[in-house]
Amino acid sequence: MRTVEWDAAEQCVRMIDQRLLPAEFKLVSYRDYRQVAQAIQQMVVRGAPAIGAAAAFGLALAAQRSRAANKDALIQEIHEAAATLSSARPTAANLTWGLRRVLDAAERGEGGVEAIVGAVLMEAQRIADEDVVINQRMARYGAELIDDGDTIIHHCNTGALATVDWGTALGVIRMAHTQGKRVHVLVDETRPRLQGARLTAWELEQYKIPYEIIADNAAGYFLRSGQAQKVFFGGDRMAANGDVANKIGTYMLALAAYDNNVPVYCVVPTSTIDLSLAHGGLIPIEERNADEVLGLQIDGQAVAPGNARARNPAFDVTPNRLITGIVTEKGVVTPPYEKNLRPAVEMPG
Amino acid sequence: MRTVEWDAAEQCVRMIDQRLLPAEFKLVSYRDYRQVAQAIQQMVVRGAPAIGAAAAFGLALAAQRSRAANKDALIQEIHEAAATLSSARPTAANLTWGLRRVLDAAERGEGGVEAIVGAVLMEAQRIADEDVVINQRMARYGAELIDDGDTIIHHCNTGALATVDWGTALGVIRMAHTQGKRVHVLVDETRPRLQGARLTAWELEQYKIPYEIIADNAAGYFLRSGQAQKVFFGGDRMAANGDVANKIGTYMLALAAYDNNVPVYCVVPTSTIDLSLAHGGLIPIEERNADEVLGLQIDGQAVAPGNARARNPAFDVTPNRLITGIVTEKGVVTPPYEKNLRPAVEMPG
Repeated sequence: MRTVEWDAAEQCVRMIDQRLLPAEFKLVSYRDYRQVAQAIQQMVVRGAPAIGAAAAFGLALAAQRSRAANKDALIQEIHEAAATLSSARPTAANLTWGLRRVLDAAERGEGGVEAIVGAVLMEAQRIADEDVVINQRMARYGAELIDDGDTIIHHCNTGALATVDWGTALGVIRMAHTQGKRVHVLVDETRPRLQGARLTAWELEQYKIPYEIIADNAAGYFLRSGQAQKVFFGGDRMAANGDVANKIGTYMLALAAYDNNVPVYCVVPTSTIDLSLAHGGLIPIEERNADEVLGLQIDGQAVAPGNARARNPAFDVTPNRLITGIVTEKGVVTPPYEKNLRPAVEMPG
Repeated sequence: MRTVEWDAAEQCVRMIDQRLLPAEFKLVSYRDYRQVAQAIQQMVVRGAPAIGAAAAFGLALAAQRSRAANKDALIQEIHEAAATLSSARPTAANLTWGLRRVLDAAERGEGGVEAIVGAVLMEAQRIADEDVVINQRMARYGAELIDDGDTIIHHCNTGALATVDWGTALGVIRMAHTQGKRVHVLVDETRPRLQGARLTAWELEQYKIPYEIIADNAAGYFLRSGQAQKVFFGGDRMAANGDVANKIGTYMLALAAYDNNVPVYCVVPTSTIDLSLAHGGLIPIEERNADEVLGLQIDGQAVAPGNARARNPAFDVTPNRLITGIVTEKGVVTPPYEKNLRPAVEMPG
């Protein structure tokens, strides 16, 4: 099944509750867009492309459940729902991008209330369907960058669970594996929420791709000792110059790869690229609850002192100078990104 | 009390069981050097200087419990004990340094078996006592590098718990605080064993030094956004050129500081400096059990899939080019370390 999907029979959004994996595989259904906003905020669903699709379906829920008597009132309600969904998480570009696409479809829509409701759902469904196609296209471009026998360090989760299906950076690795290349993945556990140890490891088990989990701290050791040939990660928002906000720790990983001449690839659909921002310093960085850092246990014992405080920025910005190539559904973009990225994004699909 | 000490009344080595902190403060006593070797291996006691003292006391136990009839047989037994203790952990220079000092005292010793036993204990006690003095001397040199109002990123635990008492890098921070400078510490939680979140946070609570725990991953964010003014860490073994093996993650932290022009200070007693090694590539790096990476829980749930594998290098090497200054008990050494470090180490105390 898809990570996020529309159930036409039940008229609801259904998604995998990623907070419970790998211990439990559970589906949750939402009939109210406010629940979808909360699911995004609480990371029931996460990963920039998956968030984009989830938010779009959230607007479909808002439209379907609306009692607006006319088109203007309906569009007003959809706008209000979009504002709520948009504020769930600030960093991922796909969230506002998905909402924008659905809002445009609503505003463009002809006919009465019912036609608009249909147009909204159709656009959300189109976003979800396109995401799978786009991921597989990126995967084929990206797989060409992987050599037989590569050991690849991968950060966070960028697989099927981070998208509607297939994945971005992990989708590239999966494609290379499918093509018969022997790959081995060093899975950054990705503190604080451990998406690597929980989700990426779980996906790799299913794809039967060999992997080992490492503390994020250890990536530098493997890079410096020549035990990793590539670094792959996704992105939550990329600026026009190629600077990219991604899961916290990506910057240090890219830096360590750069310091050892190991190629660094960022895999993002063009929906993650925000051409309105000149550079990464303009990307809003979410700081999440300290409990995500402090909630660890070993042998059932809390790890930090009871009254400890913590800081928990969820993303950092990796400067473009550290990135060897950006893989999008339109091809692989190489430096100088200031010159090459915008034309690649604006190229007709 | 001290982290490691000799109990003269009970004729045993007593130490804090650091595996249980911060939940429980428990002292453990050992009467057999093999137990001490196991305690070092299992990290009941950790931190290069503390390991050095613990191993030295281990030899004192071996000497005291020996039934050797003559000096040669006794020295032979002490050598065997030293071999066992030495193999407990391969990276920290202080382990072999402490054992060497005690072995030398035994071999140098005049008189019969009883005199040698006494000389061995006296040398171990001297190592422990000197460690405290050396730490406070380093702390005063190092504190001059800290400015009022500094936010400092600190990796692993290098406080009283990593030494016999007072600490190395954390001892510097503690000294600056004692001198009335306002300091704030960003405590790297230090995966996989979380010595930062568990031990450094616990110590800072007692010293009433303000701190916040961060995922190791987040250090780059704070450095890049100008929220940290200094980086301090200790060392487990430093080569003659200033390359230093320290807790896994130190290299990535130093790299991120260097990339943002934030000064990086390594605080090590000269006993951690191994002048026999030309560079850090020659330092043996311990790889520990994968369970240390995989044993995490959140809400009582295991984090990684049941059959996941992991890699767990315990140290990495930070190249000398990333280090702004090396603080020893003989002063602060600055680059070029190839030229400046050896004379500083060989300078008479």
